[in-house]
Formats: sequence, C-alpha cells, structure tokens
Amino acid sequence: MRISGRSPIGVFDSGLGGLTVFKALARLMPEESLVYFGDTAHVPYGSKSPEAIARFSTAIARFLASRGIKLLVVACNTSSAWALPAIRRAVKVPVIGVIEPGSRAALAASLRGRVGVIGTEATVKSGAYPKAIKTLSPRAKTLSQACPLFVPLVEEGWWTGDVVAAVARRYTAPLRAARVDTLILGCTHYPYLKKVLAKAMGPRVRLIDSADETARATERLLSESGLRAPKGRRGSREFYASDAPERFARLGSRMLGGAVRRVKLHPFDA
Amino acid sequence: MRISGRSPIGVFDSGLGGLTVFKALARLMPEESLVYFGDTAHVPYGSKSPEAIARFSTAIARFLASRGIKLLVVACNTSSAWALPAIRRAVKVPVIGVIEPGSRAALAASLRGRVGVIGTEATVKSGAYPKAIKTLSPRAKTLSQACPLFVPLVEEGWWTGDVVAAVARRYTAPLRAARVDTLILGCTHYPYLKKVLAKAMGPRVRLIDSADETARATERLLSESGLRAPKGRRGSREFYASDAPERFARLGSRMLGGAVRRVKLHPFDA
Repeated sequence: MRISGRSPIGVFDSGLGGLTVFKALARLMPEESLVYFGDTAHVPYGSKSPEAIARFSTAIARFLASRGIKLLVVACNTSSAWALPAIRRAVKVPVIGVIEPGSRAALAASLRGRVGVIGTEATVKSGAYPKAIKTLSPRAKTLSQACPLFVPLVEEGWWTGDVVAAVARRYTAPLRAARVDTLILGCTHYPYLKKVLAKAMGPRVRLIDSADETARATERLLSESGLRAPKGRRGSREFYASDAPERFARLGSRMLGGAVRRVKLHPFDA
Repeated sequence: MRISGRSPIGVFDSGLGGLTVFKALARLMPEESLVYFGDTAHVPYGSKSPEAIARFSTAIARFLASRGIKLLVVACNTSSAWALPAIRRAVKVPVIGVIEPGSRAALAASLRGRVGVIGTEATVKSGAYPKAIKTLSPRAKTLSQACPLFVPLVEEGWWTGDVVAAVARRYTAPLRAARVDTLILGCTHYPYLKKVLAKAMGPRVRLIDSADETARATERLLSESGLRAPKGRRGSREFYASDAPERFARLGSRMLGGAVRRVKLHPFDA
C-alpha cells in the first residue's frame, strides 16, 4: 500500500486507555486521520507475560500496517515497555512509544531530578522508565511503584471519592517518602485520576501525562519526514476492538467526551 | 481416549479464582485426580463479550477433553452464566457449572427467600442466578449487584483493611437496603473477601460460597455414573495456564495454601 501524507496514523492500546493519546493527537493535529485499535479481548496487559504482550502487540501492528498507516503510536505503556523492538521488526513504518516522550517531559519538568513513576505491574517490572531516564540524564534518580488497582478504578468510573483517594494515598506513600519532585503517570488510564493524585502527592510535585508529549513527538517525526496531512481538512477517525465493540463505543464516548461510532470488531489469533 | 474412574476431573476458570473450587474438590475427594486450566491470557472474563467468553470456554473444554477427563467443572461464574450450552455441545463428558449448585445452596440457607447475588459485570448481566433461583423456587426474590473491583482487589492481595471495606460497603448498600437474608458470592474470587463481606452485610445475612456445593454436586454425579476413583489412593494434580505460568504458580500457591508446581504453559487460539 502506498503511504502518503493523507495516510492515517495508527494508534493502539490494550484497551480504552490509549484514547487519551488519541485525544491529544486529534487536538494537536485535527487534519490527521487516525485509526485506533483497542485489544479488548486481552485487556489488561499489565499482568500478562512479556511473551504474550509482544505476541498481541505485533499482531495488532501488522493489522494496522495492512490498513495503510504512515506511522504507529504505541499508546500502551506496558506494550511500549516490553514490545517496541518486536513491533519495529514487524512493520516498516516508524513506531513511537510513550516511554521516551514521557521520560523527556519529566526531566524537563523536574527541578531536582527526582522522578517517580507509577504504572502497571508489567511496566514497572520492565524497568523501561528508569532506563530511559538514565540514558537522557545519568544523574537523575527514579523510583517506580506498580498500581494495579488504578485501571479497574478508572474503568469502574470511580475517578473521585473516598475509595480512590485511599488507594492513591497507599500507593504513593513510598514516592512521597522518597520526596520525588515529578511523577510520571506511566499508564494511559491514569490521567483520569489526576486530581486525586495531585492531592495525594501535594502541590509541589508535577504530574506528567505522556499523552501530550507523545503527540508532539509524533508531529515532529511526521514533519521531519514530510508526511504531515494537508492543512484545513478534518481527518477521519476509525476504531477497531478485538472484543465487545458496543462496550468500547459506550465507554469510549465517555472518555473522549464525544460520540465514538461504528467500532468495528476485529478478533485475532496470536 | 477411554474414560474410567481413574480418569481426572477437569476444572477450568478464567484465571486463578477457580482454585477455590479445585480446593473444595480436593478436600472432599482426595483420591480424585484433578487437572486445572486457568485462562490467564484472557483473564478477566467479567468485562468481555458473551461471544468471546463462549469461544474461549469451548476451546479450553476441548483441550481438557483431549487430556482424557471424565467430567468437566466450569468453576468460572461468568463462563457458567454464558457458555454452558456451548461447552456441553463441544464435549461429550458431563459438564457442571457453579450457578445451579450455588442457587440451590442459597435457597436451602435462606429463611425468607430474599437472595442477593454479587458477581462480575457479565455474570450479573446474564441474569443466570435470578433465572436459576426462579426455576428452583418461584416465590423467591433475587437482587443482583455487579462488583468489578473485587477481583482486582483480591489479586492485589488487599483482602482486609480500609480500602476493601469501603468498596464492600458501597457495593452492598442496595442489597442491605433490600434486606436480603442470603448473599451468593457469585465469583470464585469472592470467598477471599468473606470476612469483609460478612461485616458489611451484618450478622444475620448468610454468605454462600458455591465452591463446596459444586464439589458435592460433582461427587453426586460421579457416584451416580459409577465413575468415582478408587478409595485410598491420592489423586494427581496438574495445572495449565494460557499465559505467565510462573505468576500462576506463585499466586496459586498462596491461594491454595500449598505449593503449585510445574504449571504448564498452553496458549491457544480462539
């Protein structure tokens, strides 16, 4: 398939969380066409094995490549942490993950180079954020904390209130004790908990949501490659899910703050 | 494959929760051999579509049938609620789900026929418990409540404490208001939260864990078919997982209160 500036950008995530990145891309570059894939048959990735994460991720990357995308954004932190090399081997288009843009944004925001990272069990286990931060700034210190309950809390819609506040206090206790000055929200679901997390961490800690930074990295790469869409038009939006497309449409509409229509079902073997 | 009394009983669940049923079977019939399958590549089933649940369940049932089982216990409530007919069509051995035994136990325990049911989103949506209870006792009243956060809380190991108590109070409020006298723990993970749930519901509400009742139904059916294992021996135990077998062994050992060794990896396409 011939790739041009009019070709869509592919975005994929284990489920609905990557819609935060989708939203940031659509806001920054409304003229770009976007095709999103949510792997709702296998969600969540956070407790799965590195092998399974790589298997699911490459199958989806190949499917999106077959739809003629010009660039692939891996919006899922867990997949970015474990499967980027395998995805890059599987497709010919450029691939952008969320770890490196998020780390870069954190270091730009950090005053004393003490960075906290929260994410899924698998993302934290991968050590991908500490490695990326070490490479960008060898003197920075990183402390990571897995927060397995945040994704189910977001999906249950409990974004505020006593329960989520208590969970946030408990998970962030070691990060507060370590006096981090910046906190990377290392999972696409976490921006929905920004208020609660800001309260738990206190006013002096900056929260980094990698969605905006990833959108900017995507724009940079497209501009450098001469692959930006023509200005003035409005890009198309297309959605695929590997299971339960109606549920995706319902929750997705709530998360995007607008109607997500015609979600196509695409189950796959991997 | 020729089936005899020495053949194993197959047990399957979307993940680790079905080990509560496995444990009840092993306690009641130590001489029976057991082979367990946890679908850790697709866990949790509770938010997946009925079609996907049936697809995964029948693939696993066929795999266990190929291992020569004499009977299949569907320990997963979500799968029992949506996929029993499909599973029964897929394999030739008798199939026992957890809904009917659980409903029977609840009615036996209930004084005023006011039964509460808690379960996953998919189990509650299926209406399987209210239907089963209506069939067994037309005058009984049933009220169901989905509790999506309980499974992640159990898997995080937060079985007691402030957070789980607050979540339990919130989920059970409508059940308390409806003055149910019996509560079915309609998900294999929930028995780990028995203390917290007992406190939330108050001393007069009886909690029904379908694991024991399902084990008794299994024993009855095997006896009636002349397929009980010879007494005096100790049955073998075998474990399969569709992903992350080491994680299964680690958490499974904790849940069974004993070492779960040699968990075999069996990914499958469905």
